[in-house]
Amino acid sequence: MLVLHTWTTPNGKKVPILLEELGLSYEIHFVNIGKDEQFEPEFLAISPNNKVPALVDHGAEGGPLSIFESGAILTYLADKHHKFLAPSGHSRWKSQEWLYWQIGSLGPMLGQLGFFAVRSKEKAPLAIDRFTEECGRLLGVMERRLAKCPYLAGEEYTIADVACYPWMVGATTMLKDALGEHLDKKPAIDRWMQEIGGRPAVQRGMAIKPPAGI
Amino acid sequence: MLVLHTWTTPNGKKVPILLEELGLSYEIHFVNIGKDEQFEPEFLAISPNNKVPALVDHGAEGGPLSIFESGAILTYLADKHHKFLAPSGHSRWKSQEWLYWQIGSLGPMLGQLGFFAVRSKEKAPLAIDRFTEECGRLLGVMERRLAKCPYLAGEEYTIADVACYPWMVGATTMLKDALGEHLDKKPAIDRWMQEIGGRPAVQRGMAIKPPAGI
Ligand SMILES: N[C@@H](CCC(=O)N[C@@H](CS)C(=O)NCC(=O)O)C(=O)O
Ligand SMILES: N[C@@H](CCC(=O)N[C@@H](CS)C(=O)NCC(=O)O)C(=O)O
Repeated sequence: MLVLHTWTTPNGKKVPILLEELGLSYEIHFVNIGKDEQFEPEFLAISPNNKVPALVDHGAEGGPLSIFESGAILTYLADKHHKFLAPSGHSRWKSQEWLYWQIGSLGPMLGQLGFFAVRSKEKAPLAIDRFTEECGRLLGVMERRLAKCPYLAGEEYTIADVACYPWMVGATTMLKDALGEHLDKKPAIDRWMQEIGGRPAVQRGMAIKPPAGI
Repeated sequence: MLVLHTWTTPNGKKVPILLEELGLSYEIHFVNIGKDEQFEPEFLAISPNNKVPALVDHGAEGGPLSIFESGAILTYLADKHHKFLAPSGHSRWKSQEWLYWQIGSLGPMLGQLGFFAVRSKEKAPLAIDRFTEECGRLLGVMERRLAKCPYLAGEEYTIADVACYPWMVGATTMLKDALGEHLDKKPAIDRWMQEIGGRPAVQRGMAIKPPAGI
């Protein structure tokens, strides 16, 4: 039995996408981060950094295993089910480098842009400029990569694409005004967004919703 | 033959530490990011996000393999040499979650604090407060973890400790004033810093220096 603790944010949607792609059955426990539920002791016991997502695999070898950090969870599930990440060789490491790129750059920088340009009432132009420019640079890196090969890791759809997709949806919707012209003339990204967004499993993963009242 | 493209920054020192721990022979190619050498076409060909470190393993199975992103490089080397990361099981994923935590949180947040609180001449109090608070929170997360077990992954020294160490050196030196009281009363972190910093391989990795004139 897989229990996923998550919320309807970009990081929170990556694992549901992969679970749907793998056709696994799982339960979602919604952690409402708008109500600070990520600070409750039971959640901190499996996610000490107080962030979603966290996965508990009750059927793991050696007994129930909890994992936090979406990059670790995606790699664990892909390795366990031998899909969307090569077990070894060049293609494994091409996927891992772009997965780390999402975790270390694309996610945190878009996240900061969201705070400074959209959510914060007080405005700090220095910070808005810094994160707008950095996100623009990252979109350029992604565009150049996807102009060279169909997927981030190369020829195959992998967990690197799964990790980036919900963030790119955020970039092109909530952050559309903040990013402005940085989103223009990105034909390779547009093609990739269309294709990834057209996958039924991706659509199901993106559509997770807490039951009424949570 | 291993060629490491790196610089004397926290991210740049992680891989030298692991290479020293593994007792491998390697060559360093210094990429002076102060002189924008990370934007040169030969470097971008192996590190399209224009950041150090990047590794080229000329002896990889299937031909020369380049990898960017320190988390991917550390995992690749640890897996290849069967050390500092369990091949499977719970301890592998405990190490991976804390490695991702370094890449996605500790590194980027200390990096932003360094920019806003130390390097930037223009001051944005909103940003300084935000990143000071977030880094203080992260230090609390790390302290609680290290109070429970000797290393980040649990009972064993792994690449998660290797990834965090150079950043914690930065936190306790360059960012000492910015972090202020957030560094106080962290006995578990202090004990861990002493122990990790006492390892000869760590000392050699931290001491990398470009030849004169670079
Ligand atoms: N690097 C982490 C980032 C996770 C993350 O930032 N989660 C956010 C939601 S998108 C969260 O739980 N925030 C609540 C908080 O920080 O208190 C991952 O990829 O899992
Ligand atoms: N997530 C990346 C971060 C690498 C990184 O930020 N490197 C910095 C030096 S510590 C860099 O090369 N900066 C140059 C630039 O961004 O242009 C990793 O862990 O490898």
